[in-house]
Amino acid sequence: MAKEITPRTEDYSKWYLDIVRKAGLADNSAVRGCMVIKPLGFGLWENMKAVLDQMFKDTGHVNAYFPLFIPKSFLSKEADHVEGFAKECAVVTHHRLMNNPNGSGVVVDPSAKLEEELIVRPTSETIIWNTYRDWINSYRDLPLLINQWANVVRWEMRTRPFLRTAEFLWQEGHTAHATKAEALEESQMIHEVYARFAEDYMAMPVIKGAKTASERFAGAEETYTIEALMQDGKALQAGTSHFLGQNFAKAFDVKYSTKENKEEYVWATSWGVSTRLVGGLIMTHSDDEGLVLPPKLAPVQVVIIPIPKPDPEIMEVADAMAEALKAQGVRVKVDRDDQKRPGFKFAQYEMEGVPVRIGIGKRDLEKGLVEIARRDTKTKESIAKDGAVAHVKTLLDEIQDNLLARAKQFRADHTSTVENFDQFKEVLESKGGFIYAHWDGTAETEAKIKEETKATIRCIPNDSPLEEGVCVYSGKPSKQKVLFAKAY
Amino acid sequence: MAKEITPRTEDYSKWYLDIVRKAGLADNSAVRGCMVIKPLGFGLWENMKAVLDQMFKDTGHVNAYFPLFIPKSFLSKEADHVEGFAKECAVVTHHRLMNNPNGSGVVVDPSAKLEEELIVRPTSETIIWNTYRDWINSYRDLPLLINQWANVVRWEMRTRPFLRTAEFLWQEGHTAHATKAEALEESQMIHEVYARFAEDYMAMPVIKGAKTASERFAGAEETYTIEALMQDGKALQAGTSHFLGQNFAKAFDVKYSTKENKEEYVWATSWGVSTRLVGGLIMTHSDDEGLVLPPKLAPVQVVIIPIPKPDPEIMEVADAMAEALKAQGVRVKVDRDDQKRPGFKFAQYEMEGVPVRIGIGKRDLEKGLVEIARRDTKTKESIAKDGAVAHVKTLLDEIQDNLLARAKQFRADHTSTVENFDQFKEVLESKGGFIYAHWDGTAETEAKIKEETKATIRCIPNDSPLEEGVCVYSGKPSKQKVLFAKAY
Repeated sequence: MAKEITPRTEDYSKWYLDIVRKAGLADNSAVRGCMVIKPLGFGLWENMKAVLDQMFKDTGHVNAYFPLFIPKSFLSKEADHVEGFAKECAVVTHHRLMNNPNGSGVVVDPSAKLEEELIVRPTSETIIWNTYRDWINSYRDLPLLINQWANVVRWEMRTRPFLRTAEFLWQEGHTAHATKAEALEESQMIHEVYARFAEDYMAMPVIKGAKTASERFAGAEETYTIEALMQDGKALQAGTSHFLGQNFAKAFDVKYSTKENKEEYVWATSWGVSTRLVGGLIMTHSDDEGLVLPPKLAPVQVVIIPIPKPDPEIMEVADAMAEALKAQGVRVKVDRDDQKRPGFKFAQYEMEGVPVRIGIGKRDLEKGLVEIARRDTKTKESIAKDGAVAHVKTLLDEIQDNLLARAKQFRADHTSTVENFDQFKEVLESKGGFIYAHWDGTAETEAKIKEETKATIRCIPNDSPLEEGVCVYSGKPSKQKVLFAKAY
Repeated sequence: MAKEITPRTEDYSKWYLDIVRKAGLADNSAVRGCMVIKPLGFGLWENMKAVLDQMFKDTGHVNAYFPLFIPKSFLSKEADHVEGFAKECAVVTHHRLMNNPNGSGVVVDPSAKLEEELIVRPTSETIIWNTYRDWINSYRDLPLLINQWANVVRWEMRTRPFLRTAEFLWQEGHTAHATKAEALEESQMIHEVYARFAEDYMAMPVIKGAKTASERFAGAEETYTIEALMQDGKALQAGTSHFLGQNFAKAFDVKYSTKENKEEYVWATSWGVSTRLVGGLIMTHSDDEGLVLPPKLAPVQVVIIPIPKPDPEIMEVADAMAEALKAQGVRVKVDRDDQKRPGFKFAQYEMEGVPVRIGIGKRDLEKGLVEIARRDTKTKESIAKDGAVAHVKTLLDEIQDNLLARAKQFRADHTSTVENFDQFKEVLESKGGFIYAHWDGTAETEAKIKEETKATIRCIPNDSPLEEGVCVYSGKPSKQKVLFAKAY
């Protein structure tokens, strides 16, 4: 089974597609650019969703749901927003089909043309701020802290499962505040939530920072991003949080009366992560044998396999162990298949990234032993049956920690600091990865570097110290190193 | 506050809209027929979702996600399905906007016309069965037990929040089986799950039964339904489960090889409940003061209100009580507002349907008492502070039981058995409700009764005994009474 996967060194992009397909994460669909998320892929997203949803609720947010469709005219109300978003999107023009008068099948009914076209939401700032106008009158209505779990559509020409698809699933938070300081604080707080989620649950280390003006969200005054490093040395933008200033409040005329009874425009944030995170998870940890999953998000954390086949004696031990693990909150599956050979099953669960495998064989059992294998290191050990549950509990934490440590080590090995543009290009071509370099702060230099190298400024890292230097490209003065990389 | 609601006796339909608006359940949107689900309404749906999702998982189902869009040609592959579904739907014809060459704003880019139009899914049988063709090869791939939580769009002309909206949220289960018996059993099992959910969680009693051929889902060979009775004497179809035979397998060529290595078409079911349930919940329990919620689904089960205002001594008691309730798994909120008067707050939480209100006042506290009010009966009692937590726990169960008992009593009072068509019409006009009557089994009679009275056959109840009789309309022989009502 494993040999069906293209090795990473041979073709990273094909390796990724192989994993997605063979681990059963997603499938192509009949609709261009739209994927089918299969049960394992969706199980990962469900687990991510559950954790994030609780993090949002713990920080005072509630969920709501806004329409899928946006009237076309809304998109042009915020000038920058329309430039960034309105262009490549699904446009609904009619609301009825009819039987084809010339034969079989159905055709669009020309009489059912909409007066104003509707856009399938690429993001919901416009429809939400149009609604907030009715919801916000006084300072007592603020802050308004709302999140939405939804599907969105951006008509992408080149798609890749999870990383870039025409339709994708995400959450979008949209908050309204009385003051600039409060909105800024909210956008930074969510930025921290995203980083914590990435590191503590996905075991995916991230660099936190602000986007440059040219890389900001369309309509934002500040965009905070978390940037992760994939195994091919490319960066993945994994979650963004935007301080929107009063742009949308002005575009949709959302004002509130202050305690002093003055009318003021409201301050806004928006922030989102998407099913793209599933792609990031795959690319951070997986290997040439298949998916590798951090235990905290794995739909199945432990699989118990009777060796060579289920028989009553073995199954009694297996079921008792599964019950004991469940009682400890572990997500466990007992493999009851009596057709496939153990070797086949091992390869299958390796492919699916199950963090821990327990093999229960008759001869081992006579000695009071079971075999425990971990997916991350592919090591096995024989463990006393009676201590297996406690051992597995500890092991799951160990695997979670090891994956994060491994990813951090990889990132450290693929992070460079360069002093001039030759070095910059040399590093980019030889090993890629994150590159810290001085930049003169102009959009012009940023664009030229991108043009010449395809590397972009991923962010101005929050912890990048102020220091005098010269831009690697222009030689002009620079006050800070920023983070460059080629990116997904 | 309460006086702003139109009484049910005056105008039931307006009462419903008043509750939806004033309790903050949903709002109209800028898009015709699409609603905004506000945090309280969405909180109800989230709680329903959590319970149903667990019920589906406990019966062996997993979640997945299929595309929002369906190629137009798919809809005409199953002949009945296209008649029932393909007509009133949102049609995507273009994938790009461009700046208006004649001035401001954006227009559809005529060069970005899709080769084949896409339909926003009104239901997903077609796209899913087109996918199942690739997933199903052998009997080993069956059964395939998949559910999807999604938004769907049906272009309705007359909409009402939750009950009928152009876009709505739902779950749709789509299962594939090797045998007819197994598929039938699945559709009946889910039918029971829906009934149990309605009664045990929503406290909404339902009649279980099969739809007549003319009321079946487009493409189904059998549709099982649960039918609830609303306070205006109209029925609400609350959840349907369909046995689809081999219709979709044939339309999309989905075959499997049996153990004996023969090729057979796969058997199918599909089943769904939607945000319509929120409408059913509102209409089953609420009164002229506002929403009434069953504790098991209420986002906030208990609200604690300091009287007349938060002060340190009262808040200490309030917070301790809230902590103790939370530790018991109760969803509790402490009202910390120091501006509004208690009477205003009482009316607000009544409007929002919070099942239990605890008032903590200084004078009561001196006597070691707190005041506990229940939303369903609007009764209050003084309870020893130290016993309050245990009391509230019991009370929540009592309220849940009382709501179900009350709804059952209402249904009993509004269920009639009639012997002839005059009686039928008389009952329908005087008090409405459920009417059991003999029917000759023909679509013709069914249509005529509907035409003359607007009442439809809600179902052939599972527990309706076989008995000789004559049809109330045609006088022809009948073997069973069926259930009639006017319906939403």
